[in-house]
Amino acid sequence: MLNKVFREIPEELLVNDRKIFEGSINSDKVCNRNENGAYINSIADQKDKLLSSVREAIIKCGLKDGMTISFHHHFRDGDYIVNMVVEEIAKLGIKDITICASSLGDAHDPIGKYIEDGTITGIQTSGVRGKIGEAISTGKLKKIAIIRSHGGRVRAIEEGEVHIDVAFIGAPTSDSYGNARGVGGKSDCGVLSYSMVDAKYADKVVVITDFLVDYPNFPPSISAVDVNYVVVVDEIGDPKKIVSNVIRLTSDPRELMMADYCTRVMVNSPFFKDGFSFQTGGGGAALAVNLLLRPYLEDAGIKMSFALGGITKPMCDLLEDGFVKCLVNAQAFDAGSIESVKNNPNHFEISTSQYANPRNKGALVNKLDFVILGALEVDVNFNVNVVTGSNGILRGAPGGHPDTAAGSKCSIIVAPLVRSRIPTICDRVVTVTTPGEVVDVVVTDYGIAINPLRQDLIEALKDSKLPIYTIEELRDMAYEMCGKPDELEFEDKVVAILESRDGSILDVIRKPKVYEL
Amino acid sequence: MLNKVFREIPEELLVNDRKIFEGSINSDKVCNRNENGAYINSIADQKDKLLSSVREAIIKCGLKDGMTISFHHHFRDGDYIVNMVVEEIAKLGIKDITICASSLGDAHDPIGKYIEDGTITGIQTSGVRGKIGEAISTGKLKKIAIIRSHGGRVRAIEEGEVHIDVAFIGAPTSDSYGNARGVGGKSDCGVLSYSMVDAKYADKVVVITDFLVDYPNFPPSISAVDVNYVVVVDEIGDPKKIVSNVIRLTSDPRELMMADYCTRVMVNSPFFKDGFSFQTGGGGAALAVNLLLRPYLEDAGIKMSFALGGITKPMCDLLEDGFVKCLVNAQAFDAGSIESVKNNPNHFEISTSQYANPRNKGALVNKLDFVILGALEVDVNFNVNVVTGSNGILRGAPGGHPDTAAGSKCSIIVAPLVRSRIPTICDRVVTVTTPGEVVDVVVTDYGIAINPLRQDLIEALKDSKLPIYTIEELRDMAYEMCGKPDELEFEDKVVAILESRDGSILDVIRKPKVYEL
Repeated sequence: MLNKVFREIPEELLVNDRKIFEGSINSDKVCNRNENGAYINSIADQKDKLLSSVREAIIKCGLKDGMTISFHHHFRDGDYIVNMVVEEIAKLGIKDITICASSLGDAHDPIGKYIEDGTITGIQTSGVRGKIGEAISTGKLKKIAIIRSHGGRVRAIEEGEVHIDVAFIGAPTSDSYGNARGVGGKSDCGVLSYSMVDAKYADKVVVITDFLVDYPNFPPSISAVDVNYVVVVDEIGDPKKIVSNVIRLTSDPRELMMADYCTRVMVNSPFFKDGFSFQTGGGGAALAVNLLLRPYLEDAGIKMSFALGGITKPMCDLLEDGFVKCLVNAQAFDAGSIESVKNNPNHFEISTSQYANPRNKGALVNKLDFVILGALEVDVNFNVNVVTGSNGILRGAPGGHPDTAAGSKCSIIVAPLVRSRIPTICDRVVTVTTPGEVVDVVVTDYGIAINPLRQDLIEALKDSKLPIYTIEELRDMAYEMCGKPDELEFEDKVVAILESRDGSILDVIRKPKVYEL
Repeated sequence: MLNKVFREIPEELLVNDRKIFEGSINSDKVCNRNENGAYINSIADQKDKLLSSVREAIIKCGLKDGMTISFHHHFRDGDYIVNMVVEEIAKLGIKDITICASSLGDAHDPIGKYIEDGTITGIQTSGVRGKIGEAISTGKLKKIAIIRSHGGRVRAIEEGEVHIDVAFIGAPTSDSYGNARGVGGKSDCGVLSYSMVDAKYADKVVVITDFLVDYPNFPPSISAVDVNYVVVVDEIGDPKKIVSNVIRLTSDPRELMMADYCTRVMVNSPFFKDGFSFQTGGGGAALAVNLLLRPYLEDAGIKMSFALGGITKPMCDLLEDGFVKCLVNAQAFDAGSIESVKNNPNHFEISTSQYANPRNKGALVNKLDFVILGALEVDVNFNVNVVTGSNGILRGAPGGHPDTAAGSKCSIIVAPLVRSRIPTICDRVVTVTTPGEVVDVVVTDYGIAINPLRQDLIEALKDSKLPIYTIEELRDMAYEMCGKPDELEFEDKVVAILESRDGSILDVIRKPKVYEL
């Protein structure tokens, strides 16, 4: 049999779908000639990628009733993308859409009305706050919401438990081929870590930018290899709300005291040695630890290997000043960290899967020595709640909390013993978002408790002069100060599942019987 | 039903394999406590990854008769990895192994004996030279060999036509978790582009290094996320043969003349404008084009957007001197390009899929304006042969030739009209490795031919004063100089399939009836 270049191909070779060469022009498959006479990949033609509107992208992606769409939350409270896309979906009359977002926040209050009109019937996210949290908690969302940690979300995507039909990725810069970056442009957010897995697993990927740049926009956070369409809009976010530009070091003596306790727990633990690694959140006490650590590092003559996060300016300062060898960034929390990831060659962007997926072979959380985390509540089993408020309504996010607590050698929860006359340490948290078995130390302004599972830490800290109590003693102090609060009462109706990192059900969230919004 | 954190989970939620939380300890699945009492991912435990020998890695990967293993060729003639691994496989008595390498070369002559003893029965590669080429051409390999372009290889892996059981990835540096880089160490090769797809698609991934570095070895070419095991050996390659340290600019007047013709074809084409892109191979004339282009760029006051490759020092000099905005590197050809990719922030490493996969949505070859390529033979249909020598024996590699020719707006083949009294331009090439329909211009030392499919180029160059002929006229000149050679005669036995980029059969290679090795 002769092929297109007149070569005799024996028919016995044409097994397992193998075909003879029929030419480079094959519109469905490989290449076409463009107007320049050049062969170009029809799937990848740049002209096909650049669309004029979000509406056109939704139509070209074939979005239909019942599908799942995804978003990242790198723009935080400044995000315009989620509302922009959902509004167009609603205008097109598409219904029964599930949003699978890395997180949702106050910026997305307008989604409340699309939950009520049936445009949005499912929500899977880490964070739920504002109107969306209320809509879920009060039973208005048609399907049971699913709340996952950052690592749990990417695990669910990679293992096929969630199938994303269309990923909409807001990007501070993109070229017309879809190479998108977290830095540059008008709405600089530093990294696009949360979208990297979406880009690899979604059926269709739409990059939405307000700053088109020349090809090639390298190194890309999201590669053109994964992108179907690029849409340029006026504004993807409000830069003032994407980052807070001012990180103030706390001057609250209670926070400074807790930061001092955290630091001394670290310094007295067996993991405080050259090359240790750490992560801190963005709370006042946690941020202060970045500064308080310095003299101890200098005295010991040691350096940290990497700091992971959730990166903030105080961590970048540690890098600049040589206290840590590199920063590994899955989310830039402030303007200082955006500047740093842009300019410092030892500050690296990673995907959320590299950061925290419990099922991959190399997540960085598993290499953490220390993590310092916050809590709304901690109970006597060391279970932590970071998602439901004292009124029982959804208003938080597990984020990387369960991932870093599980992966790190020493997880430290820092929280005041009492907040607004509500005990933080209690008999039973409203919702378990991080299981107590991976929580090692609880630091409050009234004392420290170490999980009895960690006899190594109890032993290491016994001569530390730190005010160490049992968790029950801390609870008793809290209850003594403000009394034991009445248990919240809930209806039977489950409104959200709180997934463990592995996809099992860690807890469920029910509709409160009585609540004030 | 109560879960491990004593939460009541309604049974009706336990559908679709959903389970209640049973704890973070689950040896097969998520985490374990390590000796520090910390929860760590059992799949990802660093201690499990670092093995003492290649033999141990082969055993732990469960390599069995009939499986497929893969290698990259970034170490070129200095590679020790392929021989090292295959020798251990042979010692273990494992048979019937297929090697799927990005390329093989003279360094792998010892594999010849493992083909003869049945350890290796299949070979899939771009390049075949030396004893392996001879073993295939003379019918000693049990299975029909498959020869693919770089883009075709990654397409075949990504589309599942080749399944890699174990990828063995030689890496100049790695940490014990498997973050591996192409730069640094004793056997610096600049990039690990060819292995990136293998790492993502192979069942098991083994990194072999001779230079273990502290965690985290960032930014990784190969991420720990994809790596099962890390083996440290004494030497992964011979640095002197991994790169040639000296790039001499050709002083051969014939090569300089062809370089001048190539440059003038480019300059007179419609694609020579601000922001154009190009790729050149490592041949004398092609390299010279990098220098000859400079005055034209200066005169026109334009810059190139990106140069792609196969990067050589002359391209890096263009970057340093501001003639091109960035370099995009899928293979570092010389010491200068290794230095540059290490130090210049506008010199980027990419995967071979980003480089050339015809089926993905963003390959860079599709954004090329010009590519300058070599040839062993070109026929009057513009078909090019770069794999079989004048004796009919395999001795070359399609490499990125068919990919860049297909993707670029203007592909230019440069070759002397005659080599050692054998015509380069002929009636019919021995093997078609790049189909003529994607070859646009042929430049020889006796004149230039433009593919009649490219009337736009014929029109653009008609007043260029370049010596333009028909391809038949060039052939006639060649035949006049050294006579029309006798056709090679082949047996019916097919020894290798030459795959087109899309997996169809572009040509087959048969055993020559008579040959001298």
